[in-house]
Amino acid sequence: MGKNLTKRSEDYSKWYNELVVKADMAENSGVRGCMVIKPYGFAIWEKMQAQLDKMFKETGHENAYFPLFIPKSYLSKEASHVEGFAKECAVVTHYRLKNAEDGSGIIVDEDAKLEEELIVRPTSETIIWDTYRKWIQSYRDLPLLINQWANVVRWEMRTRLFLRTAEFLWQEGHTAHATKQEAIEEAETILNIYATFAEEHMAVPVIQGTKTESERFAGAVETYCIEALMQDGKALQAGTSHFLGQNFAKAFDVKFANKEGVQEHVWATSWGVSTRLMGALVMTHSDDNGLVLPPTLAPIQVVIVPIYKGIEQLDEIAETVDPLVKELRAKGISVKFDKRDTHKPGFKFNEYELKGVPIRLAIGQRDLQNGTYEVARRDTLSKETVAASEVVDRIEFLLQDIQKNIFEKARTYRDEHITRVDSYEEFKKVLKNKGGFISAHWDGTTETEDRIKEETKATIRCIPIDAEEEEGECIISGKPSSRRVLFAKAY
Amino acid sequence: MGKNLTKRSEDYSKWYNELVVKADMAENSGVRGCMVIKPYGFAIWEKMQAQLDKMFKETGHENAYFPLFIPKSYLSKEASHVEGFAKECAVVTHYRLKNAEDGSGIIVDEDAKLEEELIVRPTSETIIWDTYRKWIQSYRDLPLLINQWANVVRWEMRTRLFLRTAEFLWQEGHTAHATKQEAIEEAETILNIYATFAEEHMAVPVIQGTKTESERFAGAVETYCIEALMQDGKALQAGTSHFLGQNFAKAFDVKFANKEGVQEHVWATSWGVSTRLMGALVMTHSDDNGLVLPPTLAPIQVVIVPIYKGIEQLDEIAETVDPLVKELRAKGISVKFDKRDTHKPGFKFNEYELKGVPIRLAIGQRDLQNGTYEVARRDTLSKETVAASEVVDRIEFLLQDIQKNIFEKARTYRDEHITRVDSYEEFKKVLKNKGGFISAHWDGTTETEDRIKEETKATIRCIPIDAEEEEGECIISGKPSSRRVLFAKAY
Repeated sequence: MGKNLTKRSEDYSKWYNELVVKADMAENSGVRGCMVIKPYGFAIWEKMQAQLDKMFKETGHENAYFPLFIPKSYLSKEASHVEGFAKECAVVTHYRLKNAEDGSGIIVDEDAKLEEELIVRPTSETIIWDTYRKWIQSYRDLPLLINQWANVVRWEMRTRLFLRTAEFLWQEGHTAHATKQEAIEEAETILNIYATFAEEHMAVPVIQGTKTESERFAGAVETYCIEALMQDGKALQAGTSHFLGQNFAKAFDVKFANKEGVQEHVWATSWGVSTRLMGALVMTHSDDNGLVLPPTLAPIQVVIVPIYKGIEQLDEIAETVDPLVKELRAKGISVKFDKRDTHKPGFKFNEYELKGVPIRLAIGQRDLQNGTYEVARRDTLSKETVAASEVVDRIEFLLQDIQKNIFEKARTYRDEHITRVDSYEEFKKVLKNKGGFISAHWDGTTETEDRIKEETKATIRCIPIDAEEEEGECIISGKPSSRRVLFAKAY
Repeated sequence: MGKNLTKRSEDYSKWYNELVVKADMAENSGVRGCMVIKPYGFAIWEKMQAQLDKMFKETGHENAYFPLFIPKSYLSKEASHVEGFAKECAVVTHYRLKNAEDGSGIIVDEDAKLEEELIVRPTSETIIWDTYRKWIQSYRDLPLLINQWANVVRWEMRTRLFLRTAEFLWQEGHTAHATKQEAIEEAETILNIYATFAEEHMAVPVIQGTKTESERFAGAVETYCIEALMQDGKALQAGTSHFLGQNFAKAFDVKFANKEGVQEHVWATSWGVSTRLMGALVMTHSDDNGLVLPPTLAPIQVVIVPIYKGIEQLDEIAETVDPLVKELRAKGISVKFDKRDTHKPGFKFNEYELKGVPIRLAIGQRDLQNGTYEVARRDTLSKETVAASEVVDRIEFLLQDIQKNIFEKARTYRDEHITRVDSYEEFKKVLKNKGGFISAHWDGTTETEDRIKEETKATIRCIPIDAEEEEGECIISGKPSSRRVLFAKAY
């Protein structure tokens, strides 16, 4: 009733765009490709941030802050890095505006041209490694485990709210280590944190793997990733963790004296997740009625809607509800008691359904007399009548059950959409009719990868970390392959 | 021993710069005017953020996020606003780099020139009010109480770590109201939050007041401020809260239908505090030995340094200390047990003194035998021997006492440096010999204000909110004045 939301089956992409706006998560701004994250969306992002930040700190990482701007020359120091980012950089060239002499308005003051252009950071490896050179002298300074929460800019031509925006928010970790092994372990530790966060907090099942050479981060030796599957059968890369080898240490001359006093280049990692996760969250769980949020990340976990006529009935209801609100809050559950008299219960039901509030309680005159609440869960849209004396226990149970249920549902869908194929014909058929991940043998060459991408738009999402050894033949070249990789069309 | 810190009495400015770097708070980066906030400094900023964020949320504000970039044309819409910020704007003109054809490196791609230049936000009124036009239709949409944590850029020519940097971190609140009175009350509520935060958390005493017309925010009708006094007798503006009238609502055409259905322009406020507070914190409390931090904001509240020879003695000490660490942490006290064997106790004492850790415990063989700790407090540098059985209570007491003591010390200094003068001669003498705030009568004209500024470099810091009515004569013009204002040289 009244949501006017396009159905997923009609137009998945349109459904997503409408939902993000209607659920007050984000909207486009007057600046091309840049979004406004609205309070409700930002509250979800804050919960994500808080949890990730906790996990980073528990594993010994500290936060810091590095400049927004990167001198143009820094970007050039690591060859493949500049190759990857130069084509989509916002460039600052001047530092002042002035009034036009002809009175036509405000213009760039050409007398205030920068000697060297500054790039708005697309990622911070270069500025950070320029700094690390000053911070690292000895093995005693290692490991250096630093994270930053920041905004970054990549001038994408086609943008979509959360999924691909010119400016986005993210965290970027940048660590320095004395040994190769330790850096690899760090990249893997972070991948595990990302996977745990995705599955346990976002309720989004992910596959952990490594990227092929052509999908690797610009400047990385190895890129680890977590890949999720959306309801339209397309994959979404939800986080990456890079083993950078000594590439940036060499580009920025960062050496340390080891225990024997010998100078060595430092080993590095970098890793990040962004507001893109918000897109993954929406597209994994939500339905034609609106958002479905996992209780752990929902800004409002329980909403209570009173059904009444006149202020006296409302007061009576409040007498029962106020202590419940207090009790739930004391347990750390976020509750909203929506007493607005400017909106009818039906409107409110609709609104909270659209916004994905996990549990809705309704209470009217009959409930008051019977000592009950009507309890509705958002994930299944089912309702039940619960005695007031049992409602707290029931809510606690439901919060856990909803979290579990939406994860299981997403996992079942994902698992049903991993198809093993042994020929290119089959590959194309599955891709067209079913979508999802396709598990196939590949000969390991970029040539084959490129051909498949060109002909089908599917890319290798990852080489799964837990893939079993299996003798096979590449579906294109017929050359021998020792394990399957996962293909999919992707966001 | 070994800190090599310039004394405050020798060169206050140099002392500050050295201290910020040596205490690992921040340092200059390779980008002109932009700083790197190091982990220790950032941990203090995070504590400030967390407390302020809590206070904003408790008063009904929500966080959101708006674009980094502002189209040039937006800036021009509010006349005095553009006047205030156009002269120090970082301007993005292109969105791509390319390889120079002559192989000389990477250059700006002139084919990728933006149709309209983008300004890196110096503050976000314009982009936010452009958005509010879409969000506000009816009185039901008001008040709109939004805050954002963000980075902003003002191309300052002379920069100093934390105090004045080209890029800085801050929060900016932007609220919309149905009535003038409500907007003024909001601006005042926030000023109170800022003052409470400064005094109770930073232990920095502040004077609340309003700015004169010439010191007002570009676009404000009234600017409220909190002003603090540094140890060198110079004032520092620590936070501002602006009543913007209907200026931005008119510039961006933001109207609402009131309860009678009549269209009216919205009333606005904006308010912010920044990483500048870090500078105020350092300069208010610290001494020639290094930082002095208020316990509420100290990343490490208690450090425990073992004094031992050989691993066996350390193990013995750890047996006693480990349970203490656990007990303190359970009470929410942040403790570091520094067992590093790469550094001697003297080095560690020095380091934690420099970093302003409020309480230091030392424990050696004799303490073990006697069942005691040596407890040193950073603010007074005094030491005492405390029985292990009483050390937790003592620490709890000291954390509160240090907080109180450094606030009282700063307040006493501040109060001793507010001088009432009744002639311009006296004014100049006090300014030269003593510094601090000078309380004097002023005729209310910008002309007089400008002359004093030109001749003495002192500005009117504020018209104190609690200033008493008092008949007097302006120290320059002799014209009648009904209350005193506060002058000072300022950061």
